[in-house]
Amino acid sequence: MKIAVLTIGNELMSGRTADANSSFLARETSLQGWSVEVMMSVEDNFAAISHRINFLLTLADVIICTGGLGPTADDITTEAIARALGLPLYQDEASLNHIKNIFMKRNLTWIENNTKQAMFPQGAEVIANPVGTAPGFALKTSGKWIFVIPGIPREAQSMFSTGVLPILQREFPQKEQYMVRQTIKTFGLTESAIDKTLADIDFAILGVSIGFYPVFPENHIVLVSRQMTDNAAREKLKLAQDEVYARLNKYIFTCGEETLEEIVANLLKEKKMTIAVAESCTGGLITNRLTDVPGSSEYMECAVVSYSNAAKITMLGVPAEVIEKNGAVSEETACLMAEGARKLAGTDLGLASTGIAGPSGGSENKPVGTVYLALSAADKTICRHHVYRWDRKRNKLIFSEAALHLLKNFLQGKG
Amino acid sequence: MKIAVLTIGNELMSGRTADANSSFLARETSLQGWSVEVMMSVEDNFAAISHRINFLLTLADVIICTGGLGPTADDITTEAIARALGLPLYQDEASLNHIKNIFMKRNLTWIENNTKQAMFPQGAEVIANPVGTAPGFALKTSGKWIFVIPGIPREAQSMFSTGVLPILQREFPQKEQYMVRQTIKTFGLTESAIDKTLADIDFAILGVSIGFYPVFPENHIVLVSRQMTDNAAREKLKLAQDEVYARLNKYIFTCGEETLEEIVANLLKEKKMTIAVAESCTGGLITNRLTDVPGSSEYMECAVVSYSNAAKITMLGVPAEVIEKNGAVSEETACLMAEGARKLAGTDLGLASTGIAGPSGGSENKPVGTVYLALSAADKTICRHHVYRWDRKRNKLIFSEAALHLLKNFLQGKG
Repeated sequence: MKIAVLTIGNELMSGRTADANSSFLARETSLQGWSVEVMMSVEDNFAAISHRINFLLTLADVIICTGGLGPTADDITTEAIARALGLPLYQDEASLNHIKNIFMKRNLTWIENNTKQAMFPQGAEVIANPVGTAPGFALKTSGKWIFVIPGIPREAQSMFSTGVLPILQREFPQKEQYMVRQTIKTFGLTESAIDKTLADIDFAILGVSIGFYPVFPENHIVLVSRQMTDNAAREKLKLAQDEVYARLNKYIFTCGEETLEEIVANLLKEKKMTIAVAESCTGGLITNRLTDVPGSSEYMECAVVSYSNAAKITMLGVPAEVIEKNGAVSEETACLMAEGARKLAGTDLGLASTGIAGPSGGSENKPVGTVYLALSAADKTICRHHVYRWDRKRNKLIFSEAALHLLKNFLQGKG
Repeated sequence: MKIAVLTIGNELMSGRTADANSSFLARETSLQGWSVEVMMSVEDNFAAISHRINFLLTLADVIICTGGLGPTADDITTEAIARALGLPLYQDEASLNHIKNIFMKRNLTWIENNTKQAMFPQGAEVIANPVGTAPGFALKTSGKWIFVIPGIPREAQSMFSTGVLPILQREFPQKEQYMVRQTIKTFGLTESAIDKTLADIDFAILGVSIGFYPVFPENHIVLVSRQMTDNAAREKLKLAQDEVYARLNKYIFTCGEETLEEIVANLLKEKKMTIAVAESCTGGLITNRLTDVPGSSEYMECAVVSYSNAAKITMLGVPAEVIEKNGAVSEETACLMAEGARKLAGTDLGLASTGIAGPSGGSENKPVGTVYLALSAADKTICRHHVYRWDRKRNKLIFSEAALHLLKNFLQGKG
C-alpha cells in the first residue's frame, strides 16, 4: 500500500515554519510496513490544493493531509478537498457541540467562523480531536482514502494514532508484511569506505534494504527486513547483520539506537567506576557529552579544562619540565594529565585530551588536527595519537568521539 | 518566478531524517521575493525521481533539488536527472581533483566510487562545494533551470548562497535589484511572542520582507529590503529595523551574523580580560562554547566542572556548610563557585553555573530546569536565577546561553 503525505499551509511555503508532520507521518507509516511514495507541501490555495490532490491520487492509495482546518480565512483545506472531488459540505452536530464545549470550558467568546470547523465533505467519517478544537476526517473516493488532520504537530500526532491508524489497519490489513529493523553504528570509516566494504553483499536476495546515515563523526547503517512472517523477517535480518559484522566488526560500536555517551555511561555504572576528566583542546566537550546522559552524577566526579599550561601544572600536577621538554601536546603530557585528574579527584579513572583544534597553532611535526588522548587507571595508563583534518569545531567533536571510544574499549576489556 | 523544491533520499521517506533543507530553501527564496510553488520529497529511485522532475517542470520555472550526491550506491540523483532529460554524463576534472585533494588533506584512502561525485549531465554548470566533497550543478532545460546540491544541511546552505543564488539572480533579474539584508538575533522570547509583538508593523508598505529563524535557544529575525536603488534599499531597511528595535530592544543581542560566543570572545579580548569557569549542571558546555572561538587561549585560563559536591568544596573552596544550608543549587553556592574559580585561576573573571538539568532531581521549590548563574569580578559578584522547562539537553544548552548573556551584559556595562 502506497501513502502520500500532503502538508498544507502558507507558513510552510514561506519557510516560516519547518514541517514537522511529514517526517512524523513517514516514520509512523514506514514502521507499519507501508511505503511513503511522496511527500508534498502546498500553500492555502483552492486551485493548488485541488491540483495536488488529484496528482497524488494517481500515485498513492492513501493521502494523509495536515493543516488548514482552523477557523480563519486562510484555512480552506476542507472546502478545497470537497471542491476537488465535487462533493457538497454538511455540518456535523456532534463536532459543533464539541467545539462549543471547548469554548465554554476555556471561557472564550464564541465567534461564528468556528462553525466552519464542524463542516465536512459528504460521505466523510469524522476523526475526533482529543487535544484541540478542529476535528479531522477520512473520505473514501474511487477505492482510495484521503485523511485530513490538523497541522499543529501535537494534534496531528495524537489524531494519527487514535483516528487515522485504526482506519488504515482496518482497510489495509497486513497479512504479508512483517518488518524488523536494526541500526548499526560505526566510527572510523568514511561512508564511501563502508559502502565499498559491503558492496559484495547481495542485500536484495535477502530481502533486506540498507540505508546509510552519516551523523558526524559517526556513520550509521540501518537494515530493514520485510517478510511474510515475523520469523522470516528476523531470520533474514540476522543473515544480513552477520554479513555486515563479518566485514565491519572493528568499526561497529553498537547494534542498537543507544548513543556512544549512553554506552559508556552504562559501562561505568555496571562496573561501578568513577571518572575525572582533564581536557585541553576539547575545551569541555568530552565532559559535556559524558554529562548529557541522565544520572551522570553516578560516575562523573569532576573535570578540569586546563586550557593554559599553568593550569596543567598547578591543577593537574604535570611537571613544568615535562611540558617544556615534550610540549603541551605530547603523549607524556596527556598521560600525566590523565593521572593527575584521577589522583586529584580520587576516581577510578582519569581521561585526558591535549591537541591542536586549529585553525592555527600547528607545526610540521604536530599539524592542526593532532590529538593525544590518555586514559589512566590504577594499574596502567594508555595513550592514543590521532591526526584529523577537519575545521576547529569538527576537530573538537571527533577528538571527543575518539576519547569516548578509548574509554569504551578500555571498559570492555579491549584497551 | 516560481520555484519547486525537491528533496531526495530514502532517509526522508522513512522518516528517519527530518527534512531541514526544504524550509531553509523556502525561506531563502521567499526572502528574495520569489514564490515557492511546491515542495516535495522522493526516495532514491530512478523512476520516481524522473517522474517527479517532469511533474515539477510543469509547475515551476526553477527546481532546486537536494540529496543523493554522495559516493554510495543509493546516491543516484545525478544519473536519474540525466536519464529524465535524456542527457549523457561527463566527468569534470576540476571537481575530481577537488575531491581527491580533500581525501589527501584528510589522510583518507581514495576509493574509486568517489569519482562518481565528479560526474555531471552534459551541459551542466558545476557548483563548487566549499565545505565538503560532492559538487552540485545547475542545468538549463527548455528555458527552465534545475539545481542540484547535497542533502547535508551545512553543505546545502553554503552552496545555495555561493552557487545557486548567484545564478538565480543572473537568470531572473528583478527590477528592484538592490537588496540589503540584516540579521537580528534575539534571546528570551518565543517565536510566537516575537510574531505577536511585531504584528502591527506594516512591513509590506516598507517593501521589506521578514523571516524568522529559530536556532534554539535563540530566535533570529532576517529583514530583507529590495529597492530600485541601493540608497532606497538601505533607508527602508533602517526604518524596518528601527520598528523592530522599538519593540524588541531588550531581547536583541546582536544586529549581525556573529555568534554569541564570538561577541563574548571579542569583548574579553578588547578588554584584555581573562576568565575561569566553574560548571555544575552545564557539564562543560559553557567552556566548550567559549573555546569554540579560534584564539580562545587569549582569555580562557581554565575551567572546573565540579559535578559532585566534594569537587565544589575541595577544588573551588565552597564551604561545606554553605552547601549544606542552602543546597548545591542556590545563589550562595553559585556565587562562591564563581569566586572560587576566579581565585583558583587568578583570572579577572569567574563564571559559574549550578542547577538541575533533569529529567529527575527536582523538588517543589527547585523544579527541574532551575539554574543559578553567577559572575565574579574583582569588585562584585552578580547572580541570576532562571527556571526553564525543556528536556535535559536543551536545558543544558539554554543554561549555557543564559550564562554567556550574563557575561556579555557585564562586559558591556549592563551587568
